[in-house]
Amino acid sequence: MPELNATHDPKLTSWVESANDGRTDFPIQNLPFAIFRRQGSQEAWRGGVAIGDQIVDLAGSVQAGAFSGNARAAAQAATEPTLNRLMGLGATASSALRQALSQALQTGSAAEATLKACLVPQAEAEYALPARIGDYTDFYTSVHHATNIGKLFRPDNPLLPNYKWVPIGYHGRSSSIGVSGQSFKRPRGQVKPADADQPQVQASQRMDIELEMGLFVGAGNALGEPIAIEQAESHIFGLVLLNDWSARDIQPWEYQPLGPFLAKNFASTISPWIVTMEALAPFRAPFAHPEGDPQPLPYLSSSANSAAGGLNIQLEALIETPKMRAAGGGPARITHTNYRHAYWTAAQMVAHHTVNGCNLQPGDLLGTGTLSGPTLDQACALIELTSGGKNPIQLANGEQRTWLQDGDTVILRGWCERPGAARIGFGECVGTVLASAD
Amino acid sequence: MPELNATHDPKLTSWVESANDGRTDFPIQNLPFAIFRRQGSQEAWRGGVAIGDQIVDLAGSVQAGAFSGNARAAAQAATEPTLNRLMGLGATASSALRQALSQALQTGSAAEATLKACLVPQAEAEYALPARIGDYTDFYTSVHHATNIGKLFRPDNPLLPNYKWVPIGYHGRSSSIGVSGQSFKRPRGQVKPADADQPQVQASQRMDIELEMGLFVGAGNALGEPIAIEQAESHIFGLVLLNDWSARDIQPWEYQPLGPFLAKNFASTISPWIVTMEALAPFRAPFAHPEGDPQPLPYLSSSANSAAGGLNIQLEALIETPKMRAAGGGPARITHTNYRHAYWTAAQMVAHHTVNGCNLQPGDLLGTGTLSGPTLDQACALIELTSGGKNPIQLANGEQRTWLQDGDTVILRGWCERPGAARIGFGECVGTVLASAD
Repeated sequence: MPELNATHDPKLTSWVESANDGRTDFPIQNLPFAIFRRQGSQEAWRGGVAIGDQIVDLAGSVQAGAFSGNARAAAQAATEPTLNRLMGLGATASSALRQALSQALQTGSAAEATLKACLVPQAEAEYALPARIGDYTDFYTSVHHATNIGKLFRPDNPLLPNYKWVPIGYHGRSSSIGVSGQSFKRPRGQVKPADADQPQVQASQRMDIELEMGLFVGAGNALGEPIAIEQAESHIFGLVLLNDWSARDIQPWEYQPLGPFLAKNFASTISPWIVTMEALAPFRAPFAHPEGDPQPLPYLSSSANSAAGGLNIQLEALIETPKMRAAGGGPARITHTNYRHAYWTAAQMVAHHTVNGCNLQPGDLLGTGTLSGPTLDQACALIELTSGGKNPIQLANGEQRTWLQDGDTVILRGWCERPGAARIGFGECVGTVLASAD
Repeated sequence: MPELNATHDPKLTSWVESANDGRTDFPIQNLPFAIFRRQGSQEAWRGGVAIGDQIVDLAGSVQAGAFSGNARAAAQAATEPTLNRLMGLGATASSALRQALSQALQTGSAAEATLKACLVPQAEAEYALPARIGDYTDFYTSVHHATNIGKLFRPDNPLLPNYKWVPIGYHGRSSSIGVSGQSFKRPRGQVKPADADQPQVQASQRMDIELEMGLFVGAGNALGEPIAIEQAESHIFGLVLLNDWSARDIQPWEYQPLGPFLAKNFASTISPWIVTMEALAPFRAPFAHPEGDPQPLPYLSSSANSAAGGLNIQLEALIETPKMRAAGGGPARITHTNYRHAYWTAAQMVAHHTVNGCNLQPGDLLGTGTLSGPTLDQACALIELTSGGKNPIQLANGEQRTWLQDGDTVILRGWCERPGAARIGFGECVGTVLASAD
């Protein structure tokens, strides 16, 4: 578990002025990684680090001789068109690069002239997926979501008996994961209305979101070698926002007995910036199961996980309908929650995933599952917010939504703040539903 | 759907004598692809084609100028350490290479001297995975398996109402797929005996196999662009044998509501040789659902699929226990079935997987699911063969097996034969269970 160090000092400022306004997601205490290039250019995709409204071009920085030692090796790995090699170097390497960047970007740094020449404005950039995602696993770590959704799918049996023992997860689709800005056609598929004799094929009428976080795996493990919970966090490179788009009418008909498939695998969207575990160090929170619930089994339990396994990350989802876009009034918030409500921590996800010897690889993505909080206004999917489609959401401009309509854009945001620490954020994860092909 | 052509002529013979004995899996009518190098060497991995007991080294062949035109472009793509690029070129390209190889390997070919210098004996080769598998999807296409396993997991509700409408599938783990020869440690995980208050963590005591076929995707589709069933088979590069190892005591406790996870993702093993759809053309079979069952929905239905969507591939699984290995008597067959019993065809799997716009990519792997036939001796998993562990299998050497023991090796084989066609085969898919780490 990363400890607080000089890079977290809330008094640090940068010679990049936009990093110092206290409102940016990307002050010098954050320093998240992405893959970018100039919009519309044929430049090579390469790694970059956000600072204020700028990007430090790591390829340019390496060429300019901005780093030495371990930091240089890490930056060199990040000059490639994916961050997989940087991720595979492990936490020590990316931490060395963070230290070097923190020093070079500080007010008064002698490296200012060198690095200034390597800045690209975020307004001029476009992003790619930060990694080649070999395997994508989605967990189910919110007991509130599991209970809410269980009530709808299995009214007699909402929370299954394994939930409080097993960090439930399943494998998802890698190929259809896109980066913020993704738009996708409304999926078609088999649906079976309760009163129909047989299924029919149609465009989904119950398009939903799931507000999640995604954890990128850093160093992997060999097949047959489980990762102990004490080491688990050192295998997490960092976190992004994740929208696990879901077709709620396709899901109930297809998901038994082997789990969700076409209801989920048509698109998933992540934010471009990976906020490292080290950047999140000031926002750790104690973790415990509620009194009366089972204690985690030994392989899911450690003193560090109890002391600080939680992550105090505020999350919100907003919708921008075509009408809102036309009116220019901006999007409307539909939910607000916090990652710390999760029933299973990042370390528990990694320890559970590998207890059987399953091998994680650099760039693998672990979704947290929908991060609904304990109250209805903290629910992170429309199926919960509308009580299964019965109670439409009222939007401030007079519109209603039960499910997403064509042209609706959904925006996820996340940020961390507390007294005594600099506020950091995740940027945005934006995606838009288009009309079906038919 | 590939049609019969000169490459299928059963009278063709090769100047590679071992291809002509009528027993080999690899006569000139087969010509499957693998990735190989000389055992224990530091040679580059590259594509090869099996002929008798030899391998045509495609990298060497290209260097020797053995091919021209489309065949040369395809062979050039197969010089890489994975076949993904060849697969992505589509069926026309690999068909051109097949034609060229068939001619060059025929008895009397002028290319004999050139290609002879490019042969590597299979006895001296080692194999890698034939492709970088981006996504692995496992289907559930045997209604017999679904019914057998359903009886054990849900005695009151064995075959779910969606089964005869939906080609059920789910996403599996890519990272732990290995090539024949794979050995893996018995997985540990949470199990909950029916009479226990709470789960415990232990090495699986119910290690099982699943005899499946794996379909490698050739040309992919863009996100949002479904593949119509009429075009579906042209997106399949070829087939391998697949053993989907399963831990039956981990599975029932974890699999609800999101499907199997740690019970499956510790290892899956495939055979090295990919038999192309074109090589399988003589072994097509009519396909129909049993009378009284629902007709497939229009997106799962085509006249070609009805006329010849089935594949007449014989399949068997054998076990070699440590005692058998010591005695040198060879393995014992535990089941024998045929792929044509599947309830959903390869084309239906592809059409269903993409109906929602999900994108397949070259090198993706689609498992058929356990291919149990209609009778108990055709069941393709120990859980079925032993009636859920109640009736051990009697082996010819006097041993019994309910579940796999440490050191047990399982061998899958597949082949096609019918009057008027040359027999072709898949080689072997071999894997061994090792003792757990603890």
